[in-house]
Amino acid sequence: MARRTRQQVRKGLVIVNTGYGKGKTTAALGILMRSWGRDMRIGGVQFFKHEKASFGETKAMKRMGIELTPMGDGFTWTSRDLDETQAKALHGWEVAKQKIASGGYEVFLLDEFTYLMHFGWLDAGEVVAWLREHKPPTLHLIITGRDAPPALIEYADLVTEMKLIKHPYEDQGIKAQPGIEF
Amino acid sequence: MARRTRQQVRKGLVIVNTGYGKGKTTAALGILMRSWGRDMRIGGVQFFKHEKASFGETKAMKRMGIELTPMGDGFTWTSRDLDETQAKALHGWEVAKQKIASGGYEVFLLDEFTYLMHFGWLDAGEVVAWLREHKPPTLHLIITGRDAPPALIEYADLVTEMKLIKHPYEDQGIKAQPGIEF
Repeated sequence: MARRTRQQVRKGLVIVNTGYGKGKTTAALGILMRSWGRDMRIGGVQFFKHEKASFGETKAMKRMGIELTPMGDGFTWTSRDLDETQAKALHGWEVAKQKIASGGYEVFLLDEFTYLMHFGWLDAGEVVAWLREHKPPTLHLIITGRDAPPALIEYADLVTEMKLIKHPYEDQGIKAQPGIEF
Repeated sequence: MARRTRQQVRKGLVIVNTGYGKGKTTAALGILMRSWGRDMRIGGVQFFKHEKASFGETKAMKRMGIELTPMGDGFTWTSRDLDETQAKALHGWEVAKQKIASGGYEVFLLDEFTYLMHFGWLDAGEVVAWLREHKPPTLHLIITGRDAPPALIEYADLVTEMKLIKHPYEDQGIKAQPGIEF
């Protein structure tokens, strides 16, 4: 009977990929690929990625007809002026909220979203309160980025930490490889 | 000058996604999506996945024209008779070796390959020795699965541990969600 109950529960999962290792975004992309294979309605916002950027995933998404919107100014860890970055990111969150609340999606990705909370641009408690109220119950929501705040982890159903064991940049002189890293 | 040298190194990475958390296979699929977006030649073998299985990724790969061959008998953690599983898996490795050595790919996935070594069906040292000799230098090779053996980690360029922080199956009564988990 317990087993039967388990089988019956069906809900939109809140999935968080965090940690300092690789694979947070690619694991999210892999989920999008799976749900695309099942003809689910997919959307997402890539924070920080430049709106004109053309990464491997941007090209792939376009070709697959998946709406994954880059809404950033191309921020990198070496950026100095964060005002523009912050404004674009917060605008991205407003756009994402409309899309999430619209009910038009079955799977939605907020890529690199944790930084908006970690940098103090958004309050994690308020984000979670908004999601509790407005996220459609069956919508699967995937959030990636380092330093996922405790309130988000508390709210999430599935949290994975990607942990670096060995990295070619640190150990060897290897450049980022197109198609693999971006 | 050191920086310039870094930029110039270009090689096929050996990427290992291991650990007991989620995201090992999906992160690999995300890399395949990126490289597909860049029109790279992609191949792979999914060990254990039943050859007739139709997962979200199977459907997606077929639609994308990516050759990702399921070569297994549908092994699960509750399987009892492993003879057939072992035979199919070892056959999968023979097929994979031919494909890898062929030079016909730029990115290749060995999904859930670590188990063949962890279960003692293959010797990790011999696998690595074979790869050192036969893997084309520019081929990116991605290997997933729990318990990656030390010889493989030693050989790999990039190793990430996917670590479980919170899981819906354990904490709540949630069933596996199509398009997300498979």
